[in-house]
Amino acid sequence: MRQAYHEQLAAVTDELVLLADAVAIAMDKATSSLLDADLDLAEAVISGDAAIDSMAQELEERMFELTVRQQPVASDLRSLVAALRISASLERMGDLAVHVAKAARLRYPNQTLPPELRATIVSMGQIAQEIVTRAAEVIRTRDVAAARALQAVDERMDRHHRDLFGVVLASDWAHGVEAAIDITLIARYYERFADHATTIARRVIQVVTGDAYIDIPKP
Amino acid sequence: MRQAYHEQLAAVTDELVLLADAVAIAMDKATSSLLDADLDLAEAVISGDAAIDSMAQELEERMFELTVRQQPVASDLRSLVAALRISASLERMGDLAVHVAKAARLRYPNQTLPPELRATIVSMGQIAQEIVTRAAEVIRTRDVAAARALQAVDERMDRHHRDLFGVVLASDWAHGVEAAIDITLIARYYERFADHATTIARRVIQVVTGDAYIDIPKP
Repeated sequence: MRQAYHEQLAAVTDELVLLADAVAIAMDKATSSLLDADLDLAEAVISGDAAIDSMAQELEERMFELTVRQQPVASDLRSLVAALRISASLERMGDLAVHVAKAARLRYPNQTLPPELRATIVSMGQIAQEIVTRAAEVIRTRDVAAARALQAVDERMDRHHRDLFGVVLASDWAHGVEAAIDITLIARYYERFADHATTIARRVIQVVTGDAYIDIPKP
Repeated sequence: MRQAYHEQLAAVTDELVLLADAVAIAMDKATSSLLDADLDLAEAVISGDAAIDSMAQELEERMFELTVRQQPVASDLRSLVAALRISASLERMGDLAVHVAKAARLRYPNQTLPPELRATIVSMGQIAQEIVTRAAEVIRTRDVAAARALQAVDERMDRHHRDLFGVVLASDWAHGVEAAIDITLIARYYERFADHATTIARRVIQVVTGDAYIDIPKP
C-alpha cells in the first residue's frame, strides 16, 4: 500500500515536470511571437493555454483522488499540498505566456518592440527559459541548493525589469505612451513569470526542510 | 469524530472570512493612500501585509493538520483543497493592495493620480471593496447564485480598466509617460484584485456543485 502510494506520488512529480516543460515551450513561443511579430505563433500560444489548464486540472484531480484513497501520512500530505500549489503557479505562468503572446497580437502586423529594446527582451526570454527549466529540475530532484540558486536568476530578471522602466522614462524616449505601456506590461509579465518560478522553488525547499513557507518580500 | 471534523472545517471557513476582511481593509487603506497621497497609510498597508501572509500561512497549516488527523472523506477533502486555493488567492489580493500602496509611496509627496482620473480610481476602489466583501459572503454562505453574480461586478472593473487605457493613450493625454505607466499598473492591480475574487467565487461553485473548476478566459 505505502509503496503503491509512493509510486503514485512519483507519477504526480513526473506530471508536474511535464507541465513545467509545456509552460517553458509556451513562453518560448510567446517570446518568439513578440520578437518576430509572428501572429500564427501568438495565436498558437493563446489557444494552446487550454491544454496547460487541462493538465493542471487533471493533476489536481489525481492528487485529490490519491489523498482520498490512500489516506497519506503527514509528510506525504505535505508533498501533495506543495504539488497543488506548484501546479497553480505553473498554470499562472502559462497565463503569463498568453499575456506576452497577446501583446504581440495586439500590435500585429507592426512590431510591438522598438528595435533598441529587442536585446533586453531576448535576454528576458532566455532568463525565463532558464528559470522555468531549472524550476522543473528542482521539482524533479528536490535539490534544496538548486532551489535556493533560483533566487539569483530571478534577480537578473528583476534587473532587466527595472532597467526597462528607466528606458521608457528617459527624456530621450521617442516611441510615445503606447509603446511605453506595452513595454511596462511585457516587462511585468516576465518578472511575474520568474517570480512564480522562485515560489515553486521555495515550496520545494519547504517540503524538504519542513520549514514554513517564507515569502521573501521584494524591495 | 465526523462532527468534530465539521466543526473544525467551519472554523477554517470563519478564518477565511477573517482573512478576506483583512484584505478588504488593506485594499481600502491602499486606495485612500493613493487618493490622498498619504505616506503613513501607504506604509501601514505595506508593513501590514506580513500579518495577512501569516494568517494565510497559519490557515494552511491548520487545514493540513486537520487532513492528517481526521482523514476526511472525498467531499470534505474537496472543501479543504478549495480552502487552500482560496487562501492563496486572498494572499495574492493582499499583495495587490501592497502594490497600490507602493504606487502611492513612490510619488510621495506628489499625487500619483492626475485629478481627472481620481473619480475612476475612487470607483475602482469601491468595486474592489464590493467584490471582496461579496466574495467573503460567498465563502461564508456557499451561495452559488451569489457566487455567479460576482462575474458582473468583475465586468464593471474590467470596463474601468479598459477605459483607463483609452485615457492614457488619447492624443490629449498631458501627463507624460511616467504617469501613464503608473496608471496602467495601478489599473492592472485593481483588475487582478477583482479577478482573484471571481476565482474564489468559482472555487466555491466547484465545491458546491461538484463541477470541475472552469477558468473563464478573458477576451
